[in-house]
Amino acid sequence: MIQKPSIPKGVRDFSALDIERRAYITETIRRSFKKFCFDPIETPAFENISTLMGKYGEEGDRLIFKILNSGDFLEKVDEASLTGRNSAKAALQISEKALRYDLTVPFSRYVSMHKNELTFPFKRYQIQPVWRADRPQKGRFREFYQCDADVVGAASIFQEIELLELYRSVFADLRLPVTIKINHRKILSGLARQVGLPDERLTDFTVALDKLDKIGKQGVIDELSRKNIGSDSLQAITPLLDFSGNSQETLGFLKQFLKADATAKQGIDELEFVLQSFSALNPEDAILEADLALARGLNYYTGCIFEVRAKDVAIGSIGGGGRYDNLTEGFGFKDASGVGISFGLDRICLALEELNLFPSDISVNKRIFFVNFGATEALQALKIIRELRQKGMEADLYPESSKPAKQLAYAAKKGYPWVALIGSEELKSQKAIVKDMFSGAQSECDLSELSTFFGEKVIGNI
Amino acid sequence: MIQKPSIPKGVRDFSALDIERRAYITETIRRSFKKFCFDPIETPAFENISTLMGKYGEEGDRLIFKILNSGDFLEKVDEASLTGRNSAKAALQISEKALRYDLTVPFSRYVSMHKNELTFPFKRYQIQPVWRADRPQKGRFREFYQCDADVVGAASIFQEIELLELYRSVFADLRLPVTIKINHRKILSGLARQVGLPDERLTDFTVALDKLDKIGKQGVIDELSRKNIGSDSLQAITPLLDFSGNSQETLGFLKQFLKADATAKQGIDELEFVLQSFSALNPEDAILEADLALARGLNYYTGCIFEVRAKDVAIGSIGGGGRYDNLTEGFGFKDASGVGISFGLDRICLALEELNLFPSDISVNKRIFFVNFGATEALQALKIIRELRQKGMEADLYPESSKPAKQLAYAAKKGYPWVALIGSEELKSQKAIVKDMFSGAQSECDLSELSTFFGEKVIGNI
Repeated sequence: MIQKPSIPKGVRDFSALDIERRAYITETIRRSFKKFCFDPIETPAFENISTLMGKYGEEGDRLIFKILNSGDFLEKVDEASLTGRNSAKAALQISEKALRYDLTVPFSRYVSMHKNELTFPFKRYQIQPVWRADRPQKGRFREFYQCDADVVGAASIFQEIELLELYRSVFADLRLPVTIKINHRKILSGLARQVGLPDERLTDFTVALDKLDKIGKQGVIDELSRKNIGSDSLQAITPLLDFSGNSQETLGFLKQFLKADATAKQGIDELEFVLQSFSALNPEDAILEADLALARGLNYYTGCIFEVRAKDVAIGSIGGGGRYDNLTEGFGFKDASGVGISFGLDRICLALEELNLFPSDISVNKRIFFVNFGATEALQALKIIRELRQKGMEADLYPESSKPAKQLAYAAKKGYPWVALIGSEELKSQKAIVKDMFSGAQSECDLSELSTFFGEKVIGNI
Repeated sequence: MIQKPSIPKGVRDFSALDIERRAYITETIRRSFKKFCFDPIETPAFENISTLMGKYGEEGDRLIFKILNSGDFLEKVDEASLTGRNSAKAALQISEKALRYDLTVPFSRYVSMHKNELTFPFKRYQIQPVWRADRPQKGRFREFYQCDADVVGAASIFQEIELLELYRSVFADLRLPVTIKINHRKILSGLARQVGLPDERLTDFTVALDKLDKIGKQGVIDELSRKNIGSDSLQAITPLLDFSGNSQETLGFLKQFLKADATAKQGIDELEFVLQSFSALNPEDAILEADLALARGLNYYTGCIFEVRAKDVAIGSIGGGGRYDNLTEGFGFKDASGVGISFGLDRICLALEELNLFPSDISVNKRIFFVNFGATEALQALKIIRELRQKGMEADLYPESSKPAKQLAYAAKKGYPWVALIGSEELKSQKAIVKDMFSGAQSECDLSELSTFFGEKVIGNI
């Protein structure tokens, strides 16, 4: 039976140029991760389903890809679930494993499982794909890479400064201008208290606040009143929604607005320390901005929260993170404060593409192509090719002794800059014909000199 | 609820040393793939289930990890399969996607799907994990990496020589002594014909023959007679089982034994050409051996077949491959002859480990550790750390201003070779204390000289 070849929606094939561009980004990130002394870990593509379920909220649970048990998986399902076609209940009985949904939960599992072998504070980085059964759309895929750096076991604020430095370092290396927004969970909860909202309304409040940029002051108020936030609170929020200012002014506003709140003050002090330290380290580089509306996935953050946006391209957040406490508690490992950041590979890739920031030498073809003139000539070519490769050059012999014109057309189509021809005449004279495919110029070169000739042309050029 | 952290059986977490060792191998392989002008591709972790099912035999189908459909997956299952608990039939109705089982079938799907964008002959490499629901045992995992290089669209024998060169190049770079066994599918089918077996018995014949090394002549005869191979055939096979000799002698034996078989003669000619060419390229390096008993997964091979074994360690095959025709035919892309080889990362890793062949500098720690003496001192340290990192060094600040003894213990446990201390005294004198953690020697260094000092110690050492 003949099948039309296709792939599932939301996932992608990558060809050479994609892969080189993505590797340029991940290797840049990895280089900084290493310079900042983070250690790599890798976790399996699938975890026990109990490790993942319940960690990402109800919506997250639905978006986790579950793996069907092997063998006679229906055997153990209870009768009622089957006859009632209760997919939700049956799923838990026919699936014991699920694909990695993010890197943070597997990291928590890893740290809890290996805690006796690890030295704390433990700084790890991890660059691996994750999978989500999300509805695919522009820039959102069902398989995508995350690049995370986290520190677990250090409660002090210094690591926040280091992580901001890490962001700065990576985006400087990528030559991508960014703004890093910063806020603090204790400030957000202080603001909620200040406007008279109980703790359980915090998420409603911050979700609406986070949209201030997009929907404006009235939009936020409308959303909050739709969620039955009282008019007293709505009125109390007004100064907050009206406020705009630089980091210094934001701190001033907060000190005033939240002056009676001791917990919020801790958040303000930390924010101030981070802002001051970062600007002392980067006096000329004002990329860090306090932003009261920044909320992110509040569920597990407990301290500073960060978000990175590319400056010259509207592409949303290209990175984010923050401090979380007790993420490992569910695995029986208590009081392990953590803080981490993440880089969004796909969006960074889009940003570099739109701004034309990929280095031009990523896709430069330096290959040397040898025309195949049949067994005897090809064997001689292979000897020279081997010499070139041993010197580190990329060299290729056409796999068939087809007509030279066909082989040259192949070399041209593949963008090979150099072609060497060693036919029977050349074998006799021990001189190859060398063709510069861009200029079209041809010259002769002694076979014994070919590797020196190409070494100068190709390696000398790097 | 507190969970005991665990991972599914047959899969692994990797820590820094594992990752560096594995990267040493994959980067060595990748470097050769590039020098041989193979282009990288990557395919998604999961394919449509119809792409994979039926491609690996019945056993393979069972070992494919299937992904449960999202949402109300039971809705569409037919009543009979549910009430009859027919897992096999139900599986096809509740699962549309499955995890990559090898790299060859996704490659075939890729080539067929993108054939209008590709230039043929198309040489691709691919280094990605695959997943199999196999019973885990030593050296066999449910998640493991394959590293494949294939050429599709070239029927001539030159590419076989190139692929053997590629094997030689990689294992030379890894300094791992290997033997490459070679055979030819047309020789195997000729042998079967010669001893009077019909085509449909070929697999029985080759599966038994492949075990000659392990179970000996009598073992092979016993296995064949258990499979109802007649005594005439068993007798005719005897000279084959008795034969042993080097490649030259093997060719001599075959030319005699199969002299009446025109198809087999094609195989013998190709084998001879490959053996001669390879030894002309490698006169001093006798790593290629003809082996009549080598059969491998015969199902899709049609020409030469290869297998690589490490010389000084009993670890089984560490690589294999061969020529296959029409692998893309099932996807509607006909007459695309292919040939490829694969490297088994896990077994190569075990071999290098057992033979102590990992370069000693893989795990050399060159990090510079700064003790954290509190906000003011740490900020000064961070300025110097930044300078070091900008010069490419790995430098770390302890994330808390804990007691210096605790921080030094951390540095020792992490194996940091250099520690710098900048306390309030040092800040006043503008001189850091620098400690060589191996010798224990301490010295002073001007803060402004630290990056030069460490540059010489750390980068100068590489």
